[in-house]
Amino acid sequence: MNPITMQLVADKYIRLALEEDISSEDVTTNAVMPNAKSGEVDLICKQDGIIAGLAIFERVFHLLDSKTIVEFQVKDGDSVKSGQHLATVRGDIRVLLSGERTALNYLQRLSGIATYTRSVADLLEGTKTTLLDTRKTTPCMRIFEKYAVRIGGGCNHRYNLSDGVLLKDNHIDAAGGVRQAIAAAKAYAPFVRKIEVETETLDMVREAVEAGADIIMLDNMTTDQMAQAIGIIDGRAQTECSGNITRENIQKITDLGIDYVSSGALTHSAPILDISLKHLRVVEEQTAE
Amino acid sequence: MNPITMQLVADKYIRLALEEDISSEDVTTNAVMPNAKSGEVDLICKQDGIIAGLAIFERVFHLLDSKTIVEFQVKDGDSVKSGQHLATVRGDIRVLLSGERTALNYLQRLSGIATYTRSVADLLEGTKTTLLDTRKTTPCMRIFEKYAVRIGGGCNHRYNLSDGVLLKDNHIDAAGGVRQAIAAAKAYAPFVRKIEVETETLDMVREAVEAGADIIMLDNMTTDQMAQAIGIIDGRAQTECSGNITRENIQKITDLGIDYVSSGALTHSAPILDISLKHLRVVEEQTAE
Amino acid sequence: MNPITMQLVADKYIRLALEEDISSEDVTTNAVMPNAKSGEVDLICKQDGIIAGLAIFERVFHLLDSKTIVEFQVKDGDSVKSGQHLATVRGDIRVLLSGERTALNYLQRLSGIATYTRSVADLLEGTKTTLLDTRKTTPCMRIFEKYAVRIGGGCNHRYNLSDGVLLKDNHIDAAGGVRQAIAAAKAYAPFVRKIEVETETLDMVREAVEAGADIIMLDNMTTDQMAQAIGIIDGRAQTECSGNITRENIQKITDLGIDYVSSGALTHSAPILDISLKHLRVVEEQTAE
Amino acid sequence: MNPITMQLVADKYIRLALEEDISSEDVTTNAVMPNAKSGEVDLICKQDGIIAGLAIFERVFHLLDSKTIVEFQVKDGDSVKSGQHLATVRGDIRVLLSGERTALNYLQRLSGIATYTRSVADLLEGTKTTLLDTRKTTPCMRIFEKYAVRIGGGCNHRYNLSDGVLLKDNHIDAAGGVRQAIAAAKAYAPFVRKIEVETETLDMVREAVEAGADIIMLDNMTTDQMAQAIGIIDGRAQTECSGNITRENIQKITDLGIDYVSSGALTHSAPILDISLKHLRVVEEQTAE
Amino acid sequence: MNPITMQLVADKYIRLALEEDISSEDVTTNAVMPNAKSGEVDLICKQDGIIAGLAIFERVFHLLDSKTIVEFQVKDGDSVKSGQHLATVRGDIRVLLSGERTALNYLQRLSGIATYTRSVADLLEGTKTTLLDTRKTTPCMRIFEKYAVRIGGGCNHRYNLSDGVLLKDNHIDAAGGVRQAIAAAKAYAPFVRKIEVETETLDMVREAVEAGADIIMLDNMTTDQMAQAIGIIDGRAQTECSGNITRENIQKITDLGIDYVSSGALTHSAPILDISLKHLRVVEEQTAE
Amino acid sequence: MNPITMQLVADKYIRLALEEDISSEDVTTNAVMPNAKSGEVDLICKQDGIIAGLAIFERVFHLLDSKTIVEFQVKDGDSVKSGQHLATVRGDIRVLLSGERTALNYLQRLSGIATYTRSVADLLEGTKTTLLDTRKTTPCMRIFEKYAVRIGGGCNHRYNLSDGVLLKDNHIDAAGGVRQAIAAAKAYAPFVRKIEVETETLDMVREAVEAGADIIMLDNMTTDQMAQAIGIIDGRAQTECSGNITRENIQKITDLGIDYVSSGALTHSAPILDISLKHLRVVEEQTAE
Repeated sequence: MNPITMQLVADKYIRLALEEDISSEDVTTNAVMPNAKSGEVDLICKQDGIIAGLAIFERVFHLLDSKTIVEFQVKDGDSVKSGQHLATVRGDIRVLLSGERTALNYLQRLSGIATYTRSVADLLEGTKTTLLDTRKTTPCMRIFEKYAVRIGGGCNHRYNLSDGVLLKDNHIDAAGGVRQAIAAAKAYAPFVRKIEVETETLDMVREAVEAGADIIMLDNMTTDQMAQAIGIIDGRAQTECSGNITRENIQKITDLGIDYVSSGALTHSAPILDISLKHLRVVEEQTAE
Repeated sequence: MNPITMQLVADKYIRLALEEDISSEDVTTNAVMPNAKSGEVDLICKQDGIIAGLAIFERVFHLLDSKTIVEFQVKDGDSVKSGQHLATVRGDIRVLLSGERTALNYLQRLSGIATYTRSVADLLEGTKTTLLDTRKTTPCMRIFEKYAVRIGGGCNHRYNLSDGVLLKDNHIDAAGGVRQAIAAAKAYAPFVRKIEVETETLDMVREAVEAGADIIMLDNMTTDQMAQAIGIIDGRAQTECSGNITRENIQKITDLGIDYVSSGALTHSAPILDISLKHLRVVEEQTAE
Repeated sequence: MNPITMQLVADKYIRLALEEDISSEDVTTNAVMPNAKSGEVDLICKQDGIIAGLAIFERVFHLLDSKTIVEFQVKDGDSVKSGQHLATVRGDIRVLLSGERTALNYLQRLSGIATYTRSVADLLEGTKTTLLDTRKTTPCMRIFEKYAVRIGGGCNHRYNLSDGVLLKDNHIDAAGGVRQAIAAAKAYAPFVRKIEVETETLDMVREAVEAGADIIMLDNMTTDQMAQAIGIIDGRAQTECSGNITRENIQKITDLGIDYVSSGALTHSAPILDISLKHLRVVEEQTAE
Repeated sequence: MNPITMQLVADKYIRLALEEDISSEDVTTNAVMPNAKSGEVDLICKQDGIIAGLAIFERVFHLLDSKTIVEFQVKDGDSVKSGQHLATVRGDIRVLLSGERTALNYLQRLSGIATYTRSVADLLEGTKTTLLDTRKTTPCMRIFEKYAVRIGGGCNHRYNLSDGVLLKDNHIDAAGGVRQAIAAAKAYAPFVRKIEVETETLDMVREAVEAGADIIMLDNMTTDQMAQAIGIIDGRAQTECSGNITRENIQKITDLGIDYVSSGALTHSAPILDISLKHLRVVEEQTAE
Repeated sequence: MNPITMQLVADKYIRLALEEDISSEDVTTNAVMPNAKSGEVDLICKQDGIIAGLAIFERVFHLLDSKTIVEFQVKDGDSVKSGQHLATVRGDIRVLLSGERTALNYLQRLSGIATYTRSVADLLEGTKTTLLDTRKTTPCMRIFEKYAVRIGGGCNHRYNLSDGVLLKDNHIDAAGGVRQAIAAAKAYAPFVRKIEVETETLDMVREAVEAGADIIMLDNMTTDQMAQAIGIIDGRAQTECSGNITRENIQKITDLGIDYVSSGALTHSAPILDISLKHLRVVEEQTAE
Repeated sequence: MNPITMQLVADKYIRLALEEDISSEDVTTNAVMPNAKSGEVDLICKQDGIIAGLAIFERVFHLLDSKTIVEFQVKDGDSVKSGQHLATVRGDIRVLLSGERTALNYLQRLSGIATYTRSVADLLEGTKTTLLDTRKTTPCMRIFEKYAVRIGGGCNHRYNLSDGVLLKDNHIDAAGGVRQAIAAAKAYAPFVRKIEVETETLDMVREAVEAGADIIMLDNMTTDQMAQAIGIIDGRAQTECSGNITRENIQKITDLGIDYVSSGALTHSAPILDISLKHLRVVEEQTAE
């Protein structure tokens, strides 16, 4: 993760997560370790998968103590195996203990998303269809979860309501029709944004493409309907098919030549990847500082 | 969720989640709806499960506009069915549209946790063993996820590092032994906290119970070892067995009479419960305000 | 301004501005008015111009006391004349006095921007060229200043670095060329964003249009060069000409058929519109509350 | 700017300005520069004027990356010429690009204020009259704009409502008269504050000076009235004349021996000074860090 | 306390104090009271003294639930007696219980300060000497403690380092002498501030008064030295004597005609006034709401 | 104080305290010291007592300038004598001056609490009774004041409402009796918390011990009643006696064998320990940096 993004955007969430776990003090650690003692601990993978979020894992410890050192054996996006040694964390043992759970909570979840995304992206390998995420992310986790999707081989749909236009049925009703909604969006939205319209019928598809939509989402359509819609659009707009991609239907969708397939499950239902910190040991300090 | 908890603790996370989704403005909605228009929309369940987080769902809309009205047909903890109408949300349509995704992101995730927790808690029905969560929660979601566990029929382990003492192997090493670690914790920690010790061998169990531990966690032990440990403890401390409870091993564990079983999966790997807002419609306003 | 934008985004800046002006208390007001007294005051324009920011003006008082009532005689975008009565503010006189300066500081500046923008937009009246703002806004004022530009008849360029892609010479150098930069942006950026490229030579224009840029900015080109560039682009991308539009050169630029002209001066150098609060008077309260 | 002021007061505004410009990430830069690369860029002046805000310009980059190095060729208050090389900024090119606009937005605006202030202050050169600013500053910019006024040769009036007493007509009405208002202020306000009264008639001047006002502001008076007022005051209080100072009337005002002249235009209507970052180039790194 | 001060300044501290006491939830109350129940409780004084901080006491409950009603029998500054009924608080019993401690922690401390201040102010009754507080306040309590001093009959010295000038020996050394320090302060500080100088010798007094100091603090001087100093000053500056006022020396100091006596003990060492909430009872609700 | 606690919890209060004292800038220091100058100053004790809070004292300066160096001659918990040299602070003189008051406000108050706590703890020396604090702390000072109590030889009761269960009469009434309240608490509260019940009669004591309370507080009981209560409890629960411990009654209480005595006065009414910074002097800098 880019250090500017970390500093300006990610840090406020990470700090909040740490405060959530340490609202006054780490009582257990403070009881048995009144003073600093140097140590190190290993980051070990306990399941096969794709690792994602190493910089965030490291940042948790740095926010507690900037002198903590994390030496990584892998980098984000690598395939990792159960039992593999991923990194060594070195520093004040109190920091290692107090930061452990929060650091792992991030790393496990992001790696789980990357792992699941990779498994879906692999189904699209060799096709012209791109896998997208959605805004169905966990609250306060979007910057992290969208990053994990990219690491897993997916692409990002709009980040939030402020940086993309997606006209749904309610917006269309409010505007008085597809044509009017697109016109209103073109007049109002910063011109650097593409205009996407969600369509449910071929008539809507026709109207949207004629009104100059940049992207047309085909919502709840059968494969046949999608084929017809793509014929109507005829390259004049990009196409997106929303969700419910499975090993079974994937071939049909990609055969249609849909540009994008979006999936909420990437972020809302991926199980974590099991990773843990093991073998904490005291390290003789060599420098007095 | 208690309104004081909501106000003092939950609000800051909910607000952050809304800001995450609306960093400048909801461009689409603002383009097509320059003015307020009253409407209502239905909250519909799309999967069977346990509902949890209705007050948080409502709060998202209230933080955008305190005049929004949510009428619930169900309450937290209820079993809900696919297709069931759960609530009606009424207010400025712009609020309904701008708040939709964030409100659902909370509700779907919490209901997913409650649903999964209930399925595990049911396995323990009729035994003396209580199901516990862990600190393996999603960052910035703990107050919500621990609530969902309770709704699903689980109990909460400590909330965070500040409000419970759990001596793990590293703490024990740092203190110089089980006995010393327990003594240090008793001397340092506020006396209202129970002292829990994680043990891996029967020797550790013996030492812990003699040193006056209040709770003894049996970590990575076989069923036989656990049986011996319980014999050693002999009612002088509560017992907790950590994790990996399955339909297969559940009988053995509960037969042993373990007091508590804790499971990280309740919060880190439950899939969401699919719920959506449907049928948005304009409502004629009757009062001028 | 949309109330959701106000609540989620604008409020934090307005509150900070109030805290900037009242770091402990309004000593003068508190010295002479220990108790609440109802009053009203008139908002009077002292220069001709376009009014913008009335909702923000009102919000300043509401953040101090939600019971304050502002009755407007005009709405954002209206032409106002020197001496015109724009609104009446009614409430606790202490609130009227303590909020006055901050409320006016917003209103004067935003109206100044709207007034200046309108004067430039009028020059483009009847042409196909649209006036754009830039990111040259006053720190912590962007949400307000971009709004004022829209009220003045301009359109918004991207809101910030997160919601638009603009490849400048340095990005192009870093990527190894126009083609590579566009390819990298298309691969990385959320697909809902258009890709804009800043070009300085006709070769760059050619390369950009062939690589599929959505928008091509013609930077520091003569009118002749711009004409040639437009010929090369030939409708395959939108065109933007940056800055320094004057009464003298405007005809030439619009004759070329450039799609957009952007101007930093709209937000960085517009003088304020002079507006003040006058005729504060005590009002007899009719209800006891 | 004093580093303590920067740390405790200015930083929160600068950080907010950065977050305003980077709400999730700098998409363009992150697309083309996935990794750190060292570079440098020149700060070049494009108009003649007075430079102000160099430390704030530098701080923007330091908040993104504390390892960024800025070498200045000038210091705040220096006269600078169009084309002059003001500084070199060296560091991670991503930091240079992501921070550029925010850093320049501060520097341009503050230098614009200093330049304009200097031009007015020069008119008072050799007189006993001091130039003052007002509270008509841009919201969230006061600490910076008041600093720029000082750099331009002006002095600061009170910082905000909390640290100065200025009794206006409304306060006087509320208190029941000039005498009563001054008495109330003396009784209530911390005694380290001087009491200033705004007067519109000679009777008010007389009453104010007799009641012990420390400073008397002569509001909307003709030159003749001001002369009489000064006669009445006769050195028993300091005098301030508010606003609308022009090349034409300046001689008359200073001839009267007024102590202070305050001008809102210094901060609310000064155009920016045009400054830009140019010639970004890659720098071979010599140290491994 | 003025409602604007409360809203803009005090609220952030009160909210922090509540979060300090309720970091996740009020476990006890939530365990036994899952639902709202109306009740009321009496505020009873348990010591004689001066009451101060009633609006802050009320605000604590309002921040938890704006529908809570507090009916006061007394007002700030009143003498109260042990056993006296001061107020009734009515609302959701959970709010009464969860807010009790924080509300009392404020009220007891502020009333303690007011009580102690009144006892010292009474010693100065009938003299021309005014009692002042200092900046020796409890961190994060200044806005409250300075308010309590005023309620107790004291006056406030400067609020903080930003709104008053006090040249101490170190400042004088840094400037190169009393004269130079005063000149620097007059040139730099906003002109609405008086310049105060701390003096330790008669030479310093002489230099300060001649350099135009507005206030001269006589630090660690004997009564004789103070008498001489006052002779030297001869009405050309106000005089302040710092600290250690006792029943024994008070007469001497006031006889000298010192203008101000400041005392840190008012805020740093006043014991609390014992006050408690008693007789909580359920109230039958009459309205359904 | 543990550096993680400092970083995550204490810093936000310390920073707020600094902002309270420097809302815009330290006018005096900035007037006379426009540039950095190195110096050092001595921390001198002016009363006998127990020192507490040295790390917080140091942190105040580090938050202003991380290069400030504090060399301590003592450590928290040491007995210090009037006149004793406690530490030397070295750094930018402006930092020493601007941070002085806030640093001392913390150190004096915490040392006052430690000193008073030690004097009470000494009365319990040799008995089995432990001294406890309460939640009667100064708002926004709890993390510091509870630390000072530990340094003074006391132990901490629960930190706040979230991390301990204490059933008072109102909770008992709400639950419908002692037995029901304890049952509700056991069912709801995280199982790592002990259940404490406040009792006023022997019947309540009997019911509490039988319902399985972990700790029984004896409230407002005579020595005789307490003796009977202890007989009833008979080691089945821990016992706490609340408050009003004096040199006179201490013997009786400890003779009873009460486990804990809690005292609010430790934090709400301890006078400060007088400490000051003296002998500020310029230091020749040896390194250029």
